[in-house]
Amino acid sequence: MTQATLTISSKNYSSWSLRGWLLCKMSGLDFREEPVDPTDADVRQELLLLSPTVRVPRLTHGKVQVWDTLAIAGYLNECFPEAKLYPEDIVARAHCRAVSGEMHAGFYNLRSALPMNIKARHERFKIFSGARPDVERVREIWSECLETYGGPFLFGPATMADAMFAPVCTRLRTYAVTLEPELEAYIDRILDWAPMKEWIAGALAEPEEIEELEVEF
Amino acid sequence: MTQATLTISSKNYSSWSLRGWLLCKMSGLDFREEPVDPTDADVRQELLLLSPTVRVPRLTHGKVQVWDTLAIAGYLNECFPEAKLYPEDIVARAHCRAVSGEMHAGFYNLRSALPMNIKARHERFKIFSGARPDVERVREIWSECLETYGGPFLFGPATMADAMFAPVCTRLRTYAVTLEPELEAYIDRILDWAPMKEWIAGALAEPEEIEELEVEF
Repeated sequence: MTQATLTISSKNYSSWSLRGWLLCKMSGLDFREEPVDPTDADVRQELLLLSPTVRVPRLTHGKVQVWDTLAIAGYLNECFPEAKLYPEDIVARAHCRAVSGEMHAGFYNLRSALPMNIKARHERFKIFSGARPDVERVREIWSECLETYGGPFLFGPATMADAMFAPVCTRLRTYAVTLEPELEAYIDRILDWAPMKEWIAGALAEPEEIEELEVEF
Repeated sequence: MTQATLTISSKNYSSWSLRGWLLCKMSGLDFREEPVDPTDADVRQELLLLSPTVRVPRLTHGKVQVWDTLAIAGYLNECFPEAKLYPEDIVARAHCRAVSGEMHAGFYNLRSALPMNIKARHERFKIFSGARPDVERVREIWSECLETYGGPFLFGPATMADAMFAPVCTRLRTYAVTLEPELEAYIDRILDWAPMKEWIAGALAEPEEIEELEVEF
């Protein structure tokens, strides 16, 4: 099979691209990155949430085309079961799927009010009231997982759930939201995780020409 | 193992409950329904999207607790592989996961502008411009699937993708959105599908006391 391709957009702004890319790294898949052109009109529409014509991240693996981060997780888990993207225990696996699904379908206010922007730091950022229950729910999920499974990641070793929540870790730092020490320690672990450091370095090296795309989430 | 329980909310308004319930029916799981009380304060907050404290649909199966529709699909597919909730072919399965994931994480404008309301019929309903690209994307997905896999359902036999898009079928009828004949025929098939008829009958029999919850999506 030829080398896989993962189509992604901005490393600084695209939280979905980050999730898909982390999943590919975690699975051990041999893949190359193909960035979409952020100045392309269709891509801009997509990033600005005006039109769903471009779907990133998108993984091309032989004849398989799969976009959407949870779909990529499910596909990679089938191809690389030894990578253990999902927990081995059936109860933990169901729990992992549930919190990952929550992140995937929900947290709309968190995503819109605190868009990913790895380069930025906003001290004394005011979280609008609509996003506060989302932050509370993140705390609840993380606390319960770290307590139940004992860390260092949400379900013990790193799983797809950590990939799903990794952009939230960058956001909480960008917008100076401080949580309990054990949750701050989890954020530190994610930000210090080898694939995450590689992604962040790429984000920091990204040119500024798509600055106005900051509204993406 | 004791009988499973699926916690759901309104059959008329809750599109996520419908999806989870269809998946359980399709899997062959022996389960009983447990409706949440729609007059309960927490449940109302949840339905009104103000707070994520109650998570429905939620499946309880022995020691397993799983909420979120895609998580339920993944869990049921593991327990009941013979039900073939996911297509057997790997390329089709990746495609099915991708469009199901799109429905799960996206279509925000479609969901907010055209909330599920099985009982209602709104002729000459004006679709606001933000929701139009979502309707276009639904047409594109359905057309491509029906053409590629030959029907009668999106991926040939009924799969989780049909469960994910079933509420969209009811919405298009509620708001009098007309599509191409072959897509209308697909909507007819979904609405005439035995488990769907059972759900719709339940929705029509539901009391009216939660009328103001129509904002849910």
